[in-house]
Amino acid sequence: MASTNSSPVACKVVLASAIAKALLSEVAADLQKMNRVPRLHGYLANRDPAARMYADWTAKTTREHGFHFTLHELDREDLEDEIRQANTDEDVDGIIVYYPVFDTRRDQTLQWTVSMFKDVEGLSPQLISNMYQNIRFLDSPHNTQKSILPCTPLAIIKILEHLHMYNPILDYGKRLFGRRITVINRSEVVGRPLAALLANDGAEVYSVDVTGVQEFSRGSGLTKQKHDVREMEGWGLEQCLPISDVVISGVPGEKYKVPTHLIREGAVCINFSSDKNFNPDVKERASIYVPAIGKVTIVILLRNLLRLANNRPTNAMTP
Amino acid sequence: MASTNSSPVACKVVLASAIAKALLSEVAADLQKMNRVPRLHGYLANRDPAARMYADWTAKTTREHGFHFTLHELDREDLEDEIRQANTDEDVDGIIVYYPVFDTRRDQTLQWTVSMFKDVEGLSPQLISNMYQNIRFLDSPHNTQKSILPCTPLAIIKILEHLHMYNPILDYGKRLFGRRITVINRSEVVGRPLAALLANDGAEVYSVDVTGVQEFSRGSGLTKQKHDVREMEGWGLEQCLPISDVVISGVPGEKYKVPTHLIREGAVCINFSSDKNFNPDVKERASIYVPAIGKVTIVILLRNLLRLANNRPTNAMTP
Repeated sequence: MASTNSSPVACKVVLASAIAKALLSEVAADLQKMNRVPRLHGYLANRDPAARMYADWTAKTTREHGFHFTLHELDREDLEDEIRQANTDEDVDGIIVYYPVFDTRRDQTLQWTVSMFKDVEGLSPQLISNMYQNIRFLDSPHNTQKSILPCTPLAIIKILEHLHMYNPILDYGKRLFGRRITVINRSEVVGRPLAALLANDGAEVYSVDVTGVQEFSRGSGLTKQKHDVREMEGWGLEQCLPISDVVISGVPGEKYKVPTHLIREGAVCINFSSDKNFNPDVKERASIYVPAIGKVTIVILLRNLLRLANNRPTNAMTP
Repeated sequence: MASTNSSPVACKVVLASAIAKALLSEVAADLQKMNRVPRLHGYLANRDPAARMYADWTAKTTREHGFHFTLHELDREDLEDEIRQANTDEDVDGIIVYYPVFDTRRDQTLQWTVSMFKDVEGLSPQLISNMYQNIRFLDSPHNTQKSILPCTPLAIIKILEHLHMYNPILDYGKRLFGRRITVINRSEVVGRPLAALLANDGAEVYSVDVTGVQEFSRGSGLTKQKHDVREMEGWGLEQCLPISDVVISGVPGEKYKVPTHLIREGAVCINFSSDKNFNPDVKERASIYVPAIGKVTIVILLRNLLRLANNRPTNAMTP
């Protein structure tokens, strides 16, 4: 039910900081239950100022929230050995590498070197495979150790939960049933895993990039256990946006803008690009607009670190 | 986030009894705060078995939940005088007349005879006018006495709140922004007021009856304080249903069925007809299905009675 107070625009701008705050209190509560403080090791082996900034930011955030953090600055040729050593070091709960290192396919090999049991970023092949297959635990059939999801896609999912896009009336795992979501960006790091996660949770997802549109969906009535992907021949934003309840965009570069006039009246719009993918007039059309997500992503990193620490048998949380 | 347990169909069937239970506990808590027990007077002046059943049901429910109820069975020619008397009787908080009485326009005159300060059904001209105008209080600008809304439309709104169709992230009064809702039935008693209430709360509503489709909406960005209505020339269910998040149907008669194949995958479907307007296969398509609403409507009657009693200066709730 409703009141009579009207603000000039109906759109609610929701800042990542507000969402991060709610998630941080959960992380803090879970940290209290641990019998030791989880430790994250960061590896910086390039001169990329963005990577340096991310490293500094990780240091600040982890320490501010009561975690241990050690930054290793090293020559990139030594990185593989260092990671292998950390993989077996009992004191290390999580590993994060600041990319790009070689900025070639060799970076992927580095990613694969990080143990899946210490991979806070959720980029290990087994974790990625679990995500796409909608396998949510590492220790089936016991299902006590939750698989780790990649930080940015998971941050966006936590944002959608915060915005009440997940309907708690529906069964867990099907709470996006009935939602149509456009994801603009199909990178291997964010766009494609995000589309898969959303579809696995019940949404009908239109994944858009320069090559065209793909639909990710569990099919009519969610009869499939995991999503299928099909090419949407002849489709573009003109087809996706007017029918989408949620629009999530992460296109790099200042030039790209989501065409506001195609967005459905009252849609929820989320930008995960470091540039602004939405024009200011999105607020005249959207019901909710989230202009940036970075502060949520860093909380997810802490959340993943906690989960990794908790998955180690000697570290289990007190119930 | 999600799990791996799959039931054969994803659709959740939500029964009115479960929703009624939650609302009843609110009513019970509010009743505790009153300094006297509110009294409802019912007037039965016909031999309609459905009216008799409704009267019996009111008696049972009001008494079961701690309210006073008196049923007056009388000749219909005496009804107008009896209502006038109850209007000024200090002991009477609410009045309900079981229609049809004359089954002509004269029944409307009877409705207008009931004081708007005792009208539990919310059918008084001033209350109806407030509802359409999106005026939510009786005593502007103090805004302490809430206007009374008609029972069945309000029951459906409470059901939509229970099903998380109202987004609490959005401002009160705009929480259906972004929702498209088809209401099949445009009667003066339920369909039209319901369409108006939903549009006033921010939804884009398609109101459908045999004469065609009307759109009820507060316009792009909810810039209008109350809804406008426009005829949708050439539209039918073929146009409304595939784009509607919620489908609400209340067509009398066993023959009428909403065509399942037109309903959007994952829609929320609510039947308020005493017959079943949805085919059983709706469960293969909807995310949530509410097969009947009667048990919620009766709770709304109690809620309205409480509100009327509370609006009387001598009866105010202790804060």
